[in-house]
Amino acid sequence: MIIGFDADDTLWHNEDGFQASHREFESLLAQWADATTIEDQLFVIEQRNMPRYGYGVKAFTLSMIETAITVSEGEASAALIAEILDLGHALLDRPVKLIDGVVEVLDELADLTLMLITKGDLYHQLSRIDSSGLQERFWQTEVVAHKDVPTYERVLALHGVDPAQFVMVGNSLPSDVLPVIELGGRGVHVPYYVTWGHEHHDGDHEAPVIESLTDLPALLSAWGIR
Amino acid sequence: MIIGFDADDTLWHNEDGFQASHREFESLLAQWADATTIEDQLFVIEQRNMPRYGYGVKAFTLSMIETAITVSEGEASAALIAEILDLGHALLDRPVKLIDGVVEVLDELADLTLMLITKGDLYHQLSRIDSSGLQERFWQTEVVAHKDVPTYERVLALHGVDPAQFVMVGNSLPSDVLPVIELGGRGVHVPYYVTWGHEHHDGDHEAPVIESLTDLPALLSAWGIR
Repeated sequence: MIIGFDADDTLWHNEDGFQASHREFESLLAQWADATTIEDQLFVIEQRNMPRYGYGVKAFTLSMIETAITVSEGEASAALIAEILDLGHALLDRPVKLIDGVVEVLDELADLTLMLITKGDLYHQLSRIDSSGLQERFWQTEVVAHKDVPTYERVLALHGVDPAQFVMVGNSLPSDVLPVIELGGRGVHVPYYVTWGHEHHDGDHEAPVIESLTDLPALLSAWGIR
Repeated sequence: MIIGFDADDTLWHNEDGFQASHREFESLLAQWADATTIEDQLFVIEQRNMPRYGYGVKAFTLSMIETAITVSEGEASAALIAEILDLGHALLDRPVKLIDGVVEVLDELADLTLMLITKGDLYHQLSRIDSSGLQERFWQTEVVAHKDVPTYERVLALHGVDPAQFVMVGNSLPSDVLPVIELGGRGVHVPYYVTWGHEHHDGDHEAPVIESLTDLPALLSAWGIR
């Protein structure tokens, strides 16, 4: 049995930093629009850029700059753009902060074979994995562009993992849980306290949910996996 | 025997588009500095950002924006920044243009096992591979963050490839050729007519060089590989 883990907002904090950047971004543009207008515009621009930019801090920074120019109707100064670049740098340079209980859970599951499967910017993800100190706990690490059924199928096949022998654990229903269930594996949903606007999911599903990663060992025991 | 190919500037044109963007960028900033000053500043900023940004169009665009603010001493207008964003979009949206002879060479080598190993932005590289129409010719495709000895070692081990049975073909000596030779494989250098400033290599080496990919089948025959 192989247990896969998502990283951002599953093993370490991520979205909280983005949320803080959103608040700073809104205050930078406050003279031109209210927070809701700014966020709506940013959401539209991020969505439009996603096919060419993908996910990650660089994409977010470029979309913030484009939003600043749009919302300010071309009045945004170079100094303001420089502050947005700094928001991006700060997000990239932010130290990895593990979610409470992660080390203990990985310790407890150390006799199982663990994989890390994370989506996003290749450089930033690899640098976070490296500085997390968790790398050696994982049998395999994969940074992928999309977390969809074909990607899980390819990655599991590459490592010789039968989906029926695979459990994926993560904070995103559409990215971590539902595609693995569709493939014939198991998914465990561990919600983070905030969810990225582009990953909200409102559909029906019956995926198992746990409140904290610290509940995972008991769930795996209940499934007879350990 | 497995033959690995680099993609950017080996299978399809890449650096020529970046060079054209550099020229447009210089003309956008012409009122503040001459081309050499602008390029020197951009080079320094790109180099400084590389550990956090990695390689690719998004990184290049963010570094151009930072350079514009620096070179203009904060006078760059939002309209000018918007033009830099457009330069980035145009690079990302540029259709893949294969280098002359690539299809014929891949046809001729179709009985060998071919891999594609490319460095850069995950999303952009995958979208280029997809739109190149070449995907199905490759047994495996890998987008990596760095092309160094540990990365080649990891990727070859992952796919069960013995370095002694591996030939890597590409336009970059430090990225495609030298690390593979160091690992005990073979490297073939196929220079592109321009080289990215950050990948120039002046050291001694005795790697085989061919002028065009169309010379590859003959070289492989001379080596007894086909």
